[in-house]
Amino acid sequence: MKIAVILVSGGMDSCVTVASAIAHGYKPAFLHINYGQRTESRELMAFNEIADHYQVNKKLVVNISHLSDIGASCLTDESIQVPNADLESDDIPISYVPFRNANILAAATSWAEVLGAKAIYVGAVEEDSSGYPDCRRSFFDAFEQTIDTGTKPGTQIKIITPLINLSKKEIVEKGIALNAPLHLTWSCYKNEDVPCGECDSCYLRARGFEQAGVRDPILS
Amino acid sequence: MKIAVILVSGGMDSCVTVASAIAHGYKPAFLHINYGQRTESRELMAFNEIADHYQVNKKLVVNISHLSDIGASCLTDESIQVPNADLESDDIPISYVPFRNANILAAATSWAEVLGAKAIYVGAVEEDSSGYPDCRRSFFDAFEQTIDTGTKPGTQIKIITPLINLSKKEIVEKGIALNAPLHLTWSCYKNEDVPCGECDSCYLRARGFEQAGVRDPILS
Repeated sequence: MKIAVILVSGGMDSCVTVASAIAHGYKPAFLHINYGQRTESRELMAFNEIADHYQVNKKLVVNISHLSDIGASCLTDESIQVPNADLESDDIPISYVPFRNANILAAATSWAEVLGAKAIYVGAVEEDSSGYPDCRRSFFDAFEQTIDTGTKPGTQIKIITPLINLSKKEIVEKGIALNAPLHLTWSCYKNEDVPCGECDSCYLRARGFEQAGVRDPILS
Repeated sequence: MKIAVILVSGGMDSCVTVASAIAHGYKPAFLHINYGQRTESRELMAFNEIADHYQVNKKLVVNISHLSDIGASCLTDESIQVPNADLESDDIPISYVPFRNANILAAATSWAEVLGAKAIYVGAVEEDSSGYPDCRRSFFDAFEQTIDTGTKPGTQIKIITPLINLSKKEIVEKGIALNAPLHLTWSCYKNEDVPCGECDSCYLRARGFEQAGVRDPILS
């Protein structure tokens, strides 16, 4: 059975990505990245609960704490406030962590090369990515090229982004169709107990469930 | 003055790379990576001494300890012995740390983006790289492409590899020509007190000094 390293933040998108990889016939290896984000403990809990749900035993948690040392994002720098959602703005939001996904994919590739994995699954979404440059498919294509040139000859690792062109509504629908455990996921950027309902991530999630006509199972 | 992030392991190549960046008119920001290598303390000492020599105040030490969690290299896994030099072999040596340079460059790029740096200097050497796939210029070209697609619009960060086509002999000569503090550097993969003289890195360094007809200043 082919192994896939799956980036599992613990959010809804990563949960649906896991369900997609399994549907594609891959044996999942779960990689969680702690980059000093505010809601790390809650995310890690979601990561472990999703792993238990799917009985995944290959798990790795990687600390990329230098992203918080480097700072410049409200997700990793306590001195910068998490703003309320503003999806009209053309600017890259302050939640952007500089070149975050390259740091994450580099770690994923190192692990994938050692495991002999054939794919890395990432739940990136281009449309809803708030303009982050490292969430676009063109970035993943460029990174795949870098993997081809920078790993041992014969290594073939594809970056698969099953949600890249979906809206949040479609992700909710796909998750339900694949029976993904959405009740175990966590998306809020700000809180660890009750979703704030105001940050970009809460706003997009709520809109997705609303448009799909489904109640979000994490809301009591 | 344009800023350059310079990867400074503390070895001879990185020291000559610093001297090159300064000669090119850049203000250096020193980045040291700890990836769980055996000789980390000695390397960090060299890093700090080279920084003091050049009066560099922008310094960052990043832990990429997941590379030792992932393992598979004698540089990061204590259970794998460091072999003696075997430059005749066509195999990629066991000192290869899977996709190490992508992890390092991702961190360098995040810092460079925040600093507004225009370049990242890397002391990689293609000829003497023992066949590591992530030390070839084609890899750095692919990574540069990834930077272009994955950072904020307007970000322009070049990866400059001033030693890429040089032999160790030529690196010694360049270092001397640029008055680089080679006496402060450390290259051995195995020991932290006296260079072992037997690992790939010691062997290549010794041969470089010998061919340049110069005595290595770290040997008493």
